[in-house]
Amino acid sequence: MLAEIITIGDEILIGQIVDTNSAWMAQELNKIGIKVKQITSVSDDELHILKALQEAESRARVVLITGGLGPTKDDITKKTLAKYFNCRMVFNAAQFEQVTRIFKSFGREVTPINRLQAEVPEACTCIVNKNGTAPGMWFEKGETIFVSMPGVPYEMKGMMSYDILPLLRKKLQTPTILHRTFLTQGVGESMLAQWIEKWEDALPAHIKLAYLPSPGMVRLRLSATGEDAEILENEIAELAVKLYELVGEHIYGEGEITLPHLIQDWFIKNNKTLALAESCTGGSIAHLLTSVAGCSAYFEGGFVSYSNAMKIAKVNVPAELIDSNGVVSEAVAIAMAKETKEKLKTDYALSVTGIAGPDGGSEEKPVGTVWIGISGPEGTFAKHFRFSTDRNRNITHASLSALNLLRKVVLNKLVL
Amino acid sequence: MLAEIITIGDEILIGQIVDTNSAWMAQELNKIGIKVKQITSVSDDELHILKALQEAESRARVVLITGGLGPTKDDITKKTLAKYFNCRMVFNAAQFEQVTRIFKSFGREVTPINRLQAEVPEACTCIVNKNGTAPGMWFEKGETIFVSMPGVPYEMKGMMSYDILPLLRKKLQTPTILHRTFLTQGVGESMLAQWIEKWEDALPAHIKLAYLPSPGMVRLRLSATGEDAEILENEIAELAVKLYELVGEHIYGEGEITLPHLIQDWFIKNNKTLALAESCTGGSIAHLLTSVAGCSAYFEGGFVSYSNAMKIAKVNVPAELIDSNGVVSEAVAIAMAKETKEKLKTDYALSVTGIAGPDGGSEEKPVGTVWIGISGPEGTFAKHFRFSTDRNRNITHASLSALNLLRKVVLNKLVL
Repeated sequence: MLAEIITIGDEILIGQIVDTNSAWMAQELNKIGIKVKQITSVSDDELHILKALQEAESRARVVLITGGLGPTKDDITKKTLAKYFNCRMVFNAAQFEQVTRIFKSFGREVTPINRLQAEVPEACTCIVNKNGTAPGMWFEKGETIFVSMPGVPYEMKGMMSYDILPLLRKKLQTPTILHRTFLTQGVGESMLAQWIEKWEDALPAHIKLAYLPSPGMVRLRLSATGEDAEILENEIAELAVKLYELVGEHIYGEGEITLPHLIQDWFIKNNKTLALAESCTGGSIAHLLTSVAGCSAYFEGGFVSYSNAMKIAKVNVPAELIDSNGVVSEAVAIAMAKETKEKLKTDYALSVTGIAGPDGGSEEKPVGTVWIGISGPEGTFAKHFRFSTDRNRNITHASLSALNLLRKVVLNKLVL
Repeated sequence: MLAEIITIGDEILIGQIVDTNSAWMAQELNKIGIKVKQITSVSDDELHILKALQEAESRARVVLITGGLGPTKDDITKKTLAKYFNCRMVFNAAQFEQVTRIFKSFGREVTPINRLQAEVPEACTCIVNKNGTAPGMWFEKGETIFVSMPGVPYEMKGMMSYDILPLLRKKLQTPTILHRTFLTQGVGESMLAQWIEKWEDALPAHIKLAYLPSPGMVRLRLSATGEDAEILENEIAELAVKLYELVGEHIYGEGEITLPHLIQDWFIKNNKTLALAESCTGGSIAHLLTSVAGCSAYFEGGFVSYSNAMKIAKVNVPAELIDSNGVVSEAVAIAMAKETKEKLKTDYALSVTGIAGPDGGSEEKPVGTVWIGISGPEGTFAKHFRFSTDRNRNITHASLSALNLLRKVVLNKLVL
């Protein structure tokens, strides 16, 4: 079962806003077994919109349209839809009542422009907008269902959740699609592809694998399409067992979970505390951890010991250690982790020292060289990493690698 | 002059990633006078890609294509382009050298899959990817230019900035468009629109204003189209004078400059140093400052004093002060800034204490309440802010507001 999404309006085409609606709609459609074939953003131009509608109708059974329903002059979606469905505009009393009610609740008067918002193409069934003034419109033409919604994300989401998705589910008898996503950190897409090549080649036709890379991470997503959810779930489960055998050590979790969430869950569950000493990551790890609500239950805080002076005076790293080993070294990473744990009286401490770049590299220690230290009840150790030449990528990679190393130590009882 | 953007790959169509590339590309094309007519997201399906290419060719002079260039099996863009341009795949030695060089620098071996990445359609001119392994490809067919790029944002942006935009500018003789962008922090779009309404209404037809909002910031961009760059520049300069009269106190800079850059420039130029004590921003300010290369010249480091214990033990905030005023208070913000400046022996210190949410708010101090403190040679003060109910927005807003307050103090000699 195929759907298409058409967004109307110049905001997206001039890059003023990023289209987050389509991703959300696609996810929701996927969940009920409808696949999005194409997403098209077109301008507020009648001929262009008509062409896009025609194209979408030729490919899809469901066409979701957002945007162009505002009260201003450049919003022409409704009139264009009336043209496409070859009908006149009519006044919808229920919709006008809704607009009047909303305006009254804000103590505002209804203007002639607002009255226009209650006019809809005669061919449509109106879907009341609980969160705004522009109505949704449901059309059917031959086999295809068209739904037009406002572009304001929270209005569109309300309409989709309460009315459109249930209606689609009822109207269309769709197949089941199950997804399972495996999250890896620290290895590239091509390396993973090589390791799982045979497994991937042997996937049955109704199960697809997607590689979804982002800096420092690759997500592997299996999608199975069929009739029976239980059968699909079992098939995916069997494939997952083999995948874990092949690359399990690089999989840190599944679904939507993040490393900071995983770490927070473990620390709170085990009643342990954590502190940080960040040099080259410069606060990025602390920022990742504190972006998760509830982190104060285990995260004590830390040092952003950017200068050597601060490492010596505040974190307590001996000056001689820096002199003899260099500030980017195993010894300094270990000292930072150990001293931070002791000074802040936590169960664990994580430290990072490295050369983020673009300057500060040498033949022996090029830009991208990073030492990550962990101190815990079992002792202290540090691990060497080598990232790229780009400063911000290095900060991201070092931060995620540090969190993944900490996860391995606490969750997998990794000992180095 | 019209362009179209085609994104290839299932990630966008299943809603796993939001397409941020297209908005960026549209903005950059706009700057050189090219308007985006349509953005189309299609699946990794040969026929579907071919159809989208055909459609785009019929409407636009420039077709930018992203995605589907990874080394894995579901990426079929290159072969489909070879089909569209009716040519065979050939091995590109320069591209292979680039891949080999990147891999060598990481001590990694080139795999047969990586060798495949150096194969390109014969009809294209290869554009070397400085940030990754998949090359860009430039095709010309009749009047239309097609450029295929990887979907990884930082690889695409590098390629666009260094090669594709300059080449497009050269190849197509676009009218002169001058832009001037004013950066504001701390006020919303609708507020700004109200303050500058008359000024905006009086803009001549060939000069357009765009509002470009992002969390905590709104950029105002004037774009003037014409023949003579000097005349346009003067016109924009005159308008800018008036704009500064209207909303100048909210403009922190122009162009691409960021608050961390502005602050870094001032501190290095004036040979001053800075330290931080972050509570609710949890390392986010340190992360913003250390994302800029060269920050070690003035940024000493700081405390992420997330717990009260750490504020007391490490930052030296008196426990009684927390008890009597609450941890989110003027007195604590002042103590944090003052003590940090003294302990880390810097010229300035910036502190933040607040309730990021979702929990921890009260009637008197709701979620979003933040105190920002600054200590410098002239003394110490703190300012109260009230942000939203969303944790991550609060962290972003508090971080930018803190940096903007620091900028006002050091650059504008603001005294509170």
